[in-house]
Amino acid sequence: MPRWDTRRRAKAERIAAGRTCADDKVVDRHRLVDLLHAVIRPGDRVVLEGDNQKQADFLSRSLAGCDPIRLHDLHMLIPSVSRAEHLDLFDRGIATALDLAYAGPQSVRIAQMVDDGVVRIGAIHTYIELYARMFADLAPDVALLCAERADRDGNLYTGPNTEDTPTLAEAVAFHDGVVIVQTNEIVDAEKLPRVDIPGSWIDFVVTADRPYALEPLFTRDPRRIGELDILKAMIAIRGVYERHQVMSLNHGVGYDTAAIELILPTYGESLGLKGKIARHWALNPHPTLIPAIESGWVASIHSFGGEPGMERYTAARPDVFFTGADGSLRSNRALAQLVGQYAVDMFIGSSLQIDRDANSSTVTDGRLAGFGGAPNLGHDPHGRRHPSPAWLDLAHGQSAGRRGRKLVVQIAKTFRTGGVPTFVETLDALDGGRRAGMPLPPVMIYGDDVSHVVTEEGVAYLYKAHSLADRRAALAAVAGVTPVGRLARRTEALRRDGLVAFPQDLGVDTRLATRSLLAARGIDDLVAWSGGLYDPPPRFRDW
Amino acid sequence: MPRWDTRRRAKAERIAAGRTCADDKVVDRHRLVDLLHAVIRPGDRVVLEGDNQKQADFLSRSLAGCDPIRLHDLHMLIPSVSRAEHLDLFDRGIATALDLAYAGPQSVRIAQMVDDGVVRIGAIHTYIELYARMFADLAPDVALLCAERADRDGNLYTGPNTEDTPTLAEAVAFHDGVVIVQTNEIVDAEKLPRVDIPGSWIDFVVTADRPYALEPLFTRDPRRIGELDILKAMIAIRGVYERHQVMSLNHGVGYDTAAIELILPTYGESLGLKGKIARHWALNPHPTLIPAIESGWVASIHSFGGEPGMERYTAARPDVFFTGADGSLRSNRALAQLVGQYAVDMFIGSSLQIDRDANSSTVTDGRLAGFGGAPNLGHDPHGRRHPSPAWLDLAHGQSAGRRGRKLVVQIAKTFRTGGVPTFVETLDALDGGRRAGMPLPPVMIYGDDVSHVVTEEGVAYLYKAHSLADRRAALAAVAGVTPVGRLARRTEALRRDGLVAFPQDLGVDTRLATRSLLAARGIDDLVAWSGGLYDPPPRFRDW
Repeated sequence: MPRWDTRRRAKAERIAAGRTCADDKVVDRHRLVDLLHAVIRPGDRVVLEGDNQKQADFLSRSLAGCDPIRLHDLHMLIPSVSRAEHLDLFDRGIATALDLAYAGPQSVRIAQMVDDGVVRIGAIHTYIELYARMFADLAPDVALLCAERADRDGNLYTGPNTEDTPTLAEAVAFHDGVVIVQTNEIVDAEKLPRVDIPGSWIDFVVTADRPYALEPLFTRDPRRIGELDILKAMIAIRGVYERHQVMSLNHGVGYDTAAIELILPTYGESLGLKGKIARHWALNPHPTLIPAIESGWVASIHSFGGEPGMERYTAARPDVFFTGADGSLRSNRALAQLVGQYAVDMFIGSSLQIDRDANSSTVTDGRLAGFGGAPNLGHDPHGRRHPSPAWLDLAHGQSAGRRGRKLVVQIAKTFRTGGVPTFVETLDALDGGRRAGMPLPPVMIYGDDVSHVVTEEGVAYLYKAHSLADRRAALAAVAGVTPVGRLARRTEALRRDGLVAFPQDLGVDTRLATRSLLAARGIDDLVAWSGGLYDPPPRFRDW
Repeated sequence: MPRWDTRRRAKAERIAAGRTCADDKVVDRHRLVDLLHAVIRPGDRVVLEGDNQKQADFLSRSLAGCDPIRLHDLHMLIPSVSRAEHLDLFDRGIATALDLAYAGPQSVRIAQMVDDGVVRIGAIHTYIELYARMFADLAPDVALLCAERADRDGNLYTGPNTEDTPTLAEAVAFHDGVVIVQTNEIVDAEKLPRVDIPGSWIDFVVTADRPYALEPLFTRDPRRIGELDILKAMIAIRGVYERHQVMSLNHGVGYDTAAIELILPTYGESLGLKGKIARHWALNPHPTLIPAIESGWVASIHSFGGEPGMERYTAARPDVFFTGADGSLRSNRALAQLVGQYAVDMFIGSSLQIDRDANSSTVTDGRLAGFGGAPNLGHDPHGRRHPSPAWLDLAHGQSAGRRGRKLVVQIAKTFRTGGVPTFVETLDALDGGRRAGMPLPPVMIYGDDVSHVVTEEGVAYLYKAHSLADRRAALAAVAGVTPVGRLARRTEALRRDGLVAFPQDLGVDTRLATRSLLAARGIDDLVAWSGGLYDPPPRFRDW
């Protein structure tokens, strides 16, 4: 007689064992390591909430402090490997296998540990791909998650930084895994501003020794925006946003896209584009978007996560931001990814390296940085069916095969700081992937999904090319004197046919590309635009 | 001084108006129409929960009974237009605009009403695309949703039929819309088996006059499976599942895929494939999968929705199904769609009409059926990055561009009942789309995303074709004597090159294709396999 409830029985046993270190669901902070020893078993698949921004760091530090004799061979699922102790787990022998989506902050060390055989990587995913596998072949046994507040029944308030938590909790709670959550404080039920995740999904809560770690990844100081960024921004606005009537979009976090955000209220306004472009956004609360919001450019923003310092501002702009009944921001990475794939016309992001076919990667040398969300946002989803002017403007195919296309725009300087070419013959990712034993090169965005490339030289309208030769020639035409740009041919014909546009073709006056075009030239200006509602983190303050 | 909280103030006013018909959140059932008049305003964007299966029918009937003098010009967002009163809203002048994903049950009437100018369609979406737009340019003012039980604080238990509810609730609750929920009963908090959606997201609850409507869309009676379905199933198992080692997958709801489910424990077992294929599924709880589950074929199933009659069975098989702390199924369409796109190797579904380029559509004549979820599941997501043997087996591209591919399989008889050819020169969808004023033909799955076509003639391995001519020839080779099949050329060469395989090429003994191969030949057999846990709806019982 087969058993069909092995997971449920295992969960009941683990919870019974854990209850010895807890008062019902509430764990004594000083007994957290005991609880982890009691609840987790060698070989378990364990989700650890390292998100893009927030980190369940009390849990990760405590897990790294467990006894490797008792707890070993764990298979970790970590969306973002962000902290040293995420890798200490492997050095100490507590964990051996890792599935992840992103490892930006730990990319050098993780590459070395893979080389050394200390970390055995299952696969590098995108965020939503890793979540998806938790509902399929990677069902976790235990989740170690992070919230702002909890009550004694485990009801959670995640506040502005919800990010991945509801999705990770759902995968584990609804397949008989054990869910353990660190919170900044445990309060009476009536003191929870709202409930983001119901207590019936949560098995244990513990008050952390200090508030969870949170990184301001989406704050770009306008002082670091240079004139080439502003020129690219002007070219993008005229050559892409205006031309295709892009109403809904997602921005990456480069200084060039920050420049676009900061010249909407100046340059964009002078072109009469307010209300005609860039109304609906899928985006973390970028501080550099404050001037455009205050100037009435932005109708709505749905967010993957929050941003430190933007809490009071987002709460004061509920018409624009998604907020809860308590007034504070609601973010949700899984849903924002759906928005970024299916509801917006355009993704535009910077890239460190682009090859002649427009394949791009952020892997550049001895680093294993992972994918994050860019591959999902930066492709043309063939499952989209609703039309919009921008999407139809790129329509292609004949008869039954005719359909629109998402704008996937790469924006880059032809040369990075230090004179390193952005456009290269071969992506470093090929070598990097080979060394890490990956079956395929870790390409972030595939060239055949890229519709436009914007540089300080102009725009390549790759989607218009009818042949690979034309595509390559159009890209080369905006690649400056890089190895790829030196292959430029027939540029005048490409301009005439509309595959390439230079600033003069777009009516972009390059003399205007100065910092005086920025609606804010420093963090202090952003604070002023916000009416004092934006509270920049200390590292961004110097006044 | 601009205001930034117009939505929040409007919500507060609406709730204050609604409270006159309610005891705090609990609405007097007999005053529901008064509440709708008080809370909804002319011109509002209103989400109405018509899901694929469950229907907020007390709310939709009550809304259709409102006074069109007081309530008019509503813009309805309805995932699945399933019920007559969904369209009565337009006939009565209460609503004028509609955004939807699917309208299968109402497809003829809606086509007529669009023709007559009574319904103005914004766009026809896929499910997740429509949800996504609710977080962008289609933010709703009011949601009318459906749950099984609620407490007086609005905490909801959606039970096995969660489907779209959490996603719709999130879109509205977190952008200052009003959320109104019908429930089968309102109980004390401690009598909620679990909380699926927190009460702080919900503004009003009302006990419905009868339990919400629910359709058993995923029940296929094995008696209706014919020998051609069984032959196709055998061909698919050998030519696709076995050949590519397909471990994770999604099935459509045709009789042919039901046949595959039912011959896994017989034919699949005889081939020694148990444990080697079809372990992880994204799928509603199909009753026809019971024999495979009971025979140990299935490791996990994550579900878009539930299935009437499968409640006790899914609750008794928690190792396989996702279930809550209370033991009952947890479904979630948005997350299951992520699983179906990013975690599984294969989508296989039936199609009513396929053209020579393998474009397919379920639109066949004077019907406007919409898209549902098939376009999302039935495309190759370019945002996937983790490898699997099946995905890598279809790898294509060179150097940095090299990547795997999802198996997107169309399975069909060459002729439908009544001698109507499945393979046609031109999809009816072209004409249908034109008549409905759609800017593009309503194609369900684009041919260039289709990797395989399976018919009773054999398998066309379209992904192997290097030219359009080869693709068409491969498809024609399995299209029988249909208009497309009559164009077959060079079939022997295609077989030699592996672009086409006939049953004899696959080692499929066509003489075995009889109903005796089915592990269950009727609904009663499924009940027996389930040990009496499956309770088929009355319409499927005749013993």
